[in-house]
Amino acid sequence: MKKRIAVLGSTGSIGTQALEVIDKNPESFELMAITAGNNADLLIEQALRFVPRHVVIGNESKYAYVRDALAHLPVNVAAGFDTIVKAAGLEEIDMVLTAMVGYSGLLPTVEAVKSGKDIALANKETLVVAGEYIKKIAAENHVQILPVDSEHSAIFQCLVGEPAKSIEKIYLTASGGPFRGKTREALEHVTKKEALQHPNWCMGNKVTIDSASLMNKGLEVIEARWLFDLPPDQIDVIIHPQSIIHSMVQFTDGSLKAQMGLPDMRLPIQYALGFPDRLKSDFPRFNFADYPSLTFQKPDTSVFRNLELAFEALRKGGNMPCILNAANEIVVNAFLNDKVKFLQMPSIIEKVMHKISFIPNPSLDDYCASDSESRTITRELITAKTVF
Amino acid sequence: MKKRIAVLGSTGSIGTQALEVIDKNPESFELMAITAGNNADLLIEQALRFVPRHVVIGNESKYAYVRDALAHLPVNVAAGFDTIVKAAGLEEIDMVLTAMVGYSGLLPTVEAVKSGKDIALANKETLVVAGEYIKKIAAENHVQILPVDSEHSAIFQCLVGEPAKSIEKIYLTASGGPFRGKTREALEHVTKKEALQHPNWCMGNKVTIDSASLMNKGLEVIEARWLFDLPPDQIDVIIHPQSIIHSMVQFTDGSLKAQMGLPDMRLPIQYALGFPDRLKSDFPRFNFADYPSLTFQKPDTSVFRNLELAFEALRKGGNMPCILNAANEIVVNAFLNDKVKFLQMPSIIEKVMHKISFIPNPSLDDYCASDSESRTITRELITAKTVF
Repeated sequence: MKKRIAVLGSTGSIGTQALEVIDKNPESFELMAITAGNNADLLIEQALRFVPRHVVIGNESKYAYVRDALAHLPVNVAAGFDTIVKAAGLEEIDMVLTAMVGYSGLLPTVEAVKSGKDIALANKETLVVAGEYIKKIAAENHVQILPVDSEHSAIFQCLVGEPAKSIEKIYLTASGGPFRGKTREALEHVTKKEALQHPNWCMGNKVTIDSASLMNKGLEVIEARWLFDLPPDQIDVIIHPQSIIHSMVQFTDGSLKAQMGLPDMRLPIQYALGFPDRLKSDFPRFNFADYPSLTFQKPDTSVFRNLELAFEALRKGGNMPCILNAANEIVVNAFLNDKVKFLQMPSIIEKVMHKISFIPNPSLDDYCASDSESRTITRELITAKTVF
Repeated sequence: MKKRIAVLGSTGSIGTQALEVIDKNPESFELMAITAGNNADLLIEQALRFVPRHVVIGNESKYAYVRDALAHLPVNVAAGFDTIVKAAGLEEIDMVLTAMVGYSGLLPTVEAVKSGKDIALANKETLVVAGEYIKKIAAENHVQILPVDSEHSAIFQCLVGEPAKSIEKIYLTASGGPFRGKTREALEHVTKKEALQHPNWCMGNKVTIDSASLMNKGLEVIEARWLFDLPPDQIDVIIHPQSIIHSMVQFTDGSLKAQMGLPDMRLPIQYALGFPDRLKSDFPRFNFADYPSLTFQKPDTSVFRNLELAFEALRKGGNMPCILNAANEIVVNAFLNDKVKFLQMPSIIEKVMHKISFIPNPSLDDYCASDSESRTITRELITAKTVF
């Protein structure tokens, strides 16, 4: 039986690659719904190619444009963020791939989980912001959360078939991004163009900046905490510039398992969509002749402070990761718009973390409020041009 | 419930480490039987320490010595190779660890399998010589064969929980031994002392010489063929001097999984004995700070011809791996007794492989006959001092 898939965020980097995977495996998958925020042209192109039953554009001003382009097809076209949330819960869907960027992925994911859909989770912010809550409702609704991030997919793959409670620690690998090995002085005046040159992975702008600042790894640490139910001191980060080992698990007997391969997001996407099967693929294979040496080093958190801030937020818990994440989304946006410098980003985030009231056991409404407050305060700090 | 273990070859390198594992996990294991070929003193020491129900010494001339030393204990002492075979099938045993050296492990393993005991297989020659037969009787008797060799344990660990038929290929890693990177000229006059200096692993003499000549890896290729039911072209060997990645599986989707850790045989021994659990251990943990770089290269089969001979024997099948293995046991012994030079070993083995009649579908008796014939011819070639 084909798995019926909804792809939320189908026009982004993960979304387009997911559609490629679905396209290559027509006997395994059926694309039932696609949603996008703004990119109406690509959404239309995808709808023409796949003819999914549901097509949703977030930006309501583009509704007529999309509707008219697809008028000749048996496709329900709708618009607005609320409709994206609803699309995540449609009855005819088995699995929802959440590939929206940032905090906006939270509510659709909640809707999908509550509707009993298995989740292929590409939106790490969902677990960063509200991990405890998501895990609770996933358990209540017997929903599987399958990671799509290459690191978490690696750990998930290393854990299949292993006894429960056999994890001693996990190592999330990090390429180190374009600024690996640089000093604080050298990073003082880096441009967004330099920050967007990731050495190994081709990704969206937000996650590429997060990779350069190591915030991406920090968010992944928090995501891993919830996905694999591990306390912070069982999660470690190691810099591995070649991005071949995607992450590792160390077990209670001392044995380690690593998942490896060329950096190619189609692989973890396909694994999550196809789980528990491993579908055949024609993706390029790893060859040791091309990688005679795999190297490892400790991350320098005195330069890349975001990683330490993320651990701090995780140890504190409650609404703190939510505050961190919201502040980060705003500063990254400001950096991409030349409003703040690279090294100012962690300084602003840290200030915001200290300014907002701590809530130890937040409700979903509390998360929304903390998110909103964090964004407001971050914007104020940026506008005020406080000296960081 | 405790697993009741028999250790065949308890005084060897694997045997003593297995007893250490059993000693540290008294709530998981009970040592029921130990056997040794010649080392009566260590066997007695082990029997005094563990008081197993059965103690067998292979060398019958040492029977009285062992019996008298243990006379005050509730221990059955026996002697002779046939008694070792019988010990493998004793009713009160759940699992047999076969840690005897070389071909002598075959018949006790057959007895254990036929008696329905799960096998922790440290005697690779059993599968090299008679892999097809062993797999057949294991299936008939619903017996699990759990590998103890670090490479095969690595692959086994990478396969738990994975769908059947999802292997695309496996990589057996090889340290390359003490002579890695050497030319044929440089190996012309190496001594047994040099050959016995393995850089990473502390093992018995036979397997250490096999490691230096890459025959060990060749035998492991044949072992893997049967353990994991793979044709030769799905088995690859890669030199990895640090011996941290113990082997790898590449799946049909292109994903690879590796099992890693410090070179410590207690880990795969404990994994095999404890499977499907992972018992806690206090073995030293791997630390990336000590291994900032893991390297890989292709093996040079023009220098280390044994590896190619093993692939040749495997592709030919039938009694050919048995012939290869027997010839190798004799030449290694001769090398350890200064009767042949290092580079003469593969030349002699190759000659023997061409001299003995090929049997495509050998019975257990055929294996015994081929083994015996191969040994005789190898000895003759060595004695005749043929120019190789």
